[in-house]
Amino acid sequence: MSLVTVGTVAFDTIETPYGKAERCIGGAATYISLAASYFTKDINLVSVVGDDFPDAELKYMKKRGINLEGLDIKAGEKSFFWAGRYHDNMNQRDTISTELNVLADFNPKLPASYRDAKYLMLGNLTPAIQMKVIKQMKKRPKLIVMDTMNFWMDIAMPELKKVIKKVDVLTINDEEARQLSGEYSLVTAAKVIQKMGPRFLIIKKGEHGALLFEGEKMFYAPAMPLAKVFDPTGAGDTFAGGFIGYIAQTGKINFENMKRAVIYGSVMASFCVEEFSIARLKTLKKSEINKRVKEFSKLVKFDI
Amino acid sequence: MSLVTVGTVAFDTIETPYGKAERCIGGAATYISLAASYFTKDINLVSVVGDDFPDAELKYMKKRGINLEGLDIKAGEKSFFWAGRYHDNMNQRDTISTELNVLADFNPKLPASYRDAKYLMLGNLTPAIQMKVIKQMKKRPKLIVMDTMNFWMDIAMPELKKVIKKVDVLTINDEEARQLSGEYSLVTAAKVIQKMGPRFLIIKKGEHGALLFEGEKMFYAPAMPLAKVFDPTGAGDTFAGGFIGYIAQTGKINFENMKRAVIYGSVMASFCVEEFSIARLKTLKKSEINKRVKEFSKLVKFDI
Repeated sequence: MSLVTVGTVAFDTIETPYGKAERCIGGAATYISLAASYFTKDINLVSVVGDDFPDAELKYMKKRGINLEGLDIKAGEKSFFWAGRYHDNMNQRDTISTELNVLADFNPKLPASYRDAKYLMLGNLTPAIQMKVIKQMKKRPKLIVMDTMNFWMDIAMPELKKVIKKVDVLTINDEEARQLSGEYSLVTAAKVIQKMGPRFLIIKKGEHGALLFEGEKMFYAPAMPLAKVFDPTGAGDTFAGGFIGYIAQTGKINFENMKRAVIYGSVMASFCVEEFSIARLKTLKKSEINKRVKEFSKLVKFDI
Repeated sequence: MSLVTVGTVAFDTIETPYGKAERCIGGAATYISLAASYFTKDINLVSVVGDDFPDAELKYMKKRGINLEGLDIKAGEKSFFWAGRYHDNMNQRDTISTELNVLADFNPKLPASYRDAKYLMLGNLTPAIQMKVIKQMKKRPKLIVMDTMNFWMDIAMPELKKVIKKVDVLTINDEEARQLSGEYSLVTAAKVIQKMGPRFLIIKKGEHGALLFEGEKMFYAPAMPLAKVFDPTGAGDTFAGGFIGYIAQTGKINFENMKRAVIYGSVMASFCVEEFSIARLKTLKKSEINKRVKEFSKLVKFDI
């Protein structure tokens, strides 16, 4: 079913204990759309790049069923660029450089064909841009999923809360849930955040899995313990892409189906970190996804 | 079935963001034995206290089916004392004071009636004492479970490794698994540690649950997300007590039963942190345990 994904399409320079990748493909909307493309086909991307972004990569995205009509390619300008270095434990990273470039004055304009999409995935961007996209939808999508980050909580909390009020699913990490709610316990934080609007809340805990909340219901999805995490960049976006892709494929908005979507999101994220950039998402096979989903089932299964 | 538990019986002074408890009952063997007493009755404690330890507490332990013949009560001496303060996040704590007292020259001597016990739980103590206890067993117990901590890795690694070689199950936390193995990934760390001897390895991740390993098999037990963690002291020991108690009750040494034992251990730990010291373990009902086990099942259950 039709899905609109909004977020950055960008270059990343990444250093991890396993090596360095210079100006590789990155961006929230890139990871989201590629991950979702394993589950659904009518994916409509909204973003902006400069004319330095490689044609071959855009062709690849189109080949994977991603419609780029909503991708603004700015002649003579440069794409968004981020450089970061991960610590040895891979849970922390330092930003070395951020060049906004085309993102500085990004004003998304949704093509007419996007405006009646059933599913809307708002990748991490300024709350103001996320709101603009919501407002351009002809009618309210069946499901709006929103990702964000602590940076917007630091500098744009009032705008952020306005967007949060309008979405069905919010995905944030544990530290962000604590910052947003002012509560340390994630159970208490979830109660506070749910009152802000979203029916569903997903708290991502990285290598420790993810928690899904709806009302009083709670689900704990494990992360797959991995022998080697090569590059964590994009894991959260890939999770979101797998999640919304699975929802768009199955069409059911209820707790049981959301649980499955969280597992598929976790599975996609577990592949993403195995190689630099989007490399693993490019070689991934549907059969590998299904195999790992079974491994997840087995990992947590016990009979009392 | 007969179980020998070895460890400290002590006083703790604990400060958490929720308050302070002065000279309350603590000690690894206390928590282990009380938790195990919900599952099995023939529990035989080995430890040492001074004559300052309250009679009422010893009577309570006996009432719960804990045999204190192996508890050495040193006249004119003082019990082991620890004082600590937890940070706001409850995951870190500072030791304010440690008074070894009777523990300084503890030389455990197992009563004859203990020496053919089927199950042996070595709580956190110096590796030398743990080894002495193993050597006093008439025949090798059906299962030896060992807990330890980073402190012994820092100052007594060779002795520690000798004990590890002799046990069936090792329980340590994630940081300790990394220190012991020299590997960051817990999957790789587990492989290294399993080669040191233990057939089963349990890596405790606190609020993030626990991992159980046997050969290539892996199980991820969640921790119950709690609205309020009042006092984490003794949670690891209570986990171990619930684990070994369940094994002693059921008698099956295989991966499926170990998984259940890990769940029961996690359930017991989730109660322990709800109040200061052993207070919650004193009021706990079997029906509450069974109810929370069902909540654990529900928490991780999904159908693909």
